[in-house]
Amino acid sequence: DPSLRVFTLNSNKGLANEITEHIGVPMGKSSVTRFSDGEVQINIEESIRGCDVYLIQSTSAPANEHIMELLIMIDALKRASARTINLVMPYYGYARQDRKARAREPITAKLVANLIEKAGATRVVTLDLHATQIQGFFDIPVDQLMGVPILADYFSQKELDDIVIVSPDHGGVVRARKMADRLKAPIAIIDKRRPKPNVSEVMNIVGNIEGKTAIIIDDIIDTAGTITLAANALVEHGAKEVYACCTHPVLSGPAMERINNSKIKELVVTNSIVLDDEKKSEKVTELSVAALMGEAIIRVHEHASVSTLFD
Amino acid sequence: DPSLRVFTLNSNKGLANEITEHIGVPMGKSSVTRFSDGEVQINIEESIRGCDVYLIQSTSAPANEHIMELLIMIDALKRASARTINLVMPYYGYARQDRKARAREPITAKLVANLIEKAGATRVVTLDLHATQIQGFFDIPVDQLMGVPILADYFSQKELDDIVIVSPDHGGVVRARKMADRLKAPIAIIDKRRPKPNVSEVMNIVGNIEGKTAIIIDDIIDTAGTITLAANALVEHGAKEVYACCTHPVLSGPAMERINNSKIKELVVTNSIVLDDEKKSEKVTELSVAALMGEAIIRVHEHASVSTLFD
Ligand SMILES: Nc1ncnc2c1ncn2[C@@H]1O[C@H](COP(=O)(O)O)[C@@H](O)[C@H]1O
Ligand SMILES: Nc1ncnc2c1ncn2[C@@H]1O[C@H](COP(=O)(O)O)[C@@H](O)[C@H]1O
Repeated sequence: DPSLRVFTLNSNKGLANEITEHIGVPMGKSSVTRFSDGEVQINIEESIRGCDVYLIQSTSAPANEHIMELLIMIDALKRASARTINLVMPYYGYARQDRKARAREPITAKLVANLIEKAGATRVVTLDLHATQIQGFFDIPVDQLMGVPILADYFSQKELDDIVIVSPDHGGVVRARKMADRLKAPIAIIDKRRPKPNVSEVMNIVGNIEGKTAIIIDDIIDTAGTITLAANALVEHGAKEVYACCTHPVLSGPAMERINNSKIKELVVTNSIVLDDEKKSEKVTELSVAALMGEAIIRVHEHASVSTLFD
Repeated sequence: DPSLRVFTLNSNKGLANEITEHIGVPMGKSSVTRFSDGEVQINIEESIRGCDVYLIQSTSAPANEHIMELLIMIDALKRASARTINLVMPYYGYARQDRKARAREPITAKLVANLIEKAGATRVVTLDLHATQIQGFFDIPVDQLMGVPILADYFSQKELDDIVIVSPDHGGVVRARKMADRLKAPIAIIDKRRPKPNVSEVMNIVGNIEGKTAIIIDDIIDTAGTITLAANALVEHGAKEVYACCTHPVLSGPAMERINNSKIKELVVTNSIVLDDEKKSEKVTELSVAALMGEAIIRVHEHASVSTLFD
């Protein structure tokens, strides 16, 4: 279908190329560079009049650069008369700023939704939003894909014995439950408690992990503090070995040092965020979401259901 | 007036402090930092319910960082129930992307105006927009201040003999005319012409500069290519000495090297954009726009005319 066009920005070019290969379309021609003073310079190098454009960009670090690239590209596509502008955002930056945790804070996840709409996007396809409520921050359709099936498939092929899926906090139990269902395994929950102010947290474990292979699952691993402490607590409480997995490997600051020094045997992530060289480690396995995202683009374009991708 | 509150972001803290001193109000308390992954973290640390907030930020380089800081702060101020949110933007980034120069380009100056309004700003006070049309990109009031009086005052105190004000191109003639009126001097214009494609430009000079002290004026000096070539051409054509001045010292890439190696005796700029250490040079003189901006804030707050600032 010549009206289906895929473009990419700078956050995730490798994944974007995999996606166009999966769909079987050429990558749209555009130039996305910087002027001498660092301002974004964009030019779309082929006509897209009347086309349905799918624009691939994660708003991963540097988030502000990637967001501005995205908004400016949407502006250019709109002014070039695209019929629809569909954002494919494997990682949605600022998703953790989704509510006022304290007085006089911004709700940046909502601001970014507003900016994306104002710029002219007509649809968003994304993966594992940190909070499902973010769908409601948009007035345009938002399709949310799930990383769990990809992560579960990987572990299922490893044929590990006697596994237990562990949620690192109470907020992640639904995700752990989905993973556990796919792997036909029980779940356990890390129940952090601070007995008194200024006393360090105690890591209780709810559920039986003794002698089992634990797989901790989270949506985002950022500084890896929570997950490495959880892994060590699991081993102390008798787990045989500990794997960890997540959809979005933010891995900022001390993350890699913590992971490399932790009891985690293997960390399994997706390529929703590019792993820089210093984040590549023997412990880290990267799975591709290209087929999932490519399939979602095809279905959206054919007005077919995206949710059945997970059946 | 306790309802007048001034806040600053990170682009221009020195100028912002000068402005609050001029007005005689304390700087509003806020924390503008970064999370570990580089996302902007903002907290407003005093109540601003029902207040008129003046927020100081140039969207100078790194433009994308400064724009996102600005938008997120506006979001926080809005959610903290500010009565009005008045942006004081000494430099408006992306102002040169103000029209489609080629097919399928964005109009980022308009996009940024839309983003600022969508975030919740109610007024903009700015200085020497690259194109006056940008005022019309907003549906909220935009007050535009002028740098010419500050630059003209400086040169007038130097008591230079026999001066001529030079516009580096035809687009800058109105600005040069204003400067010339204030200094009671004639004007000249650099008339660049490319005789044939792929032949280098010829710098014609329209007007009499022989034996005179030339002062070139521009709004923005970025890579300084135009201005240094113009200075050299003026000397070749018989100017006694050459000064240059501008409101916005972007000074990116080769700018400082070019200026230091050029025939320019002194470059006079304002602090609408902070000069990093490597941009400080014996040749560069910085004038402050703090009094101008402070006065504009007072007048806006008192519903008085801002344009009479230039009489
Ligand atoms: N980029 C970020 N890095 C670390 N913490 C963040 C970030 N963005 C927001 N937060 C904070 O994370 C908390 C929300 O995380 P959660 O409780 O996991 O939903 C809030 O208190 C936010 O202030
Ligand atoms: N940050 C920038 N640096 C250099 N050139 C730019 C920048 N932004 C826009 N432009 C280009 O500058 C031209 C407009 O400059 P002007 O003719 O001086 O108004 C357009 O062709 C733009 O593509």
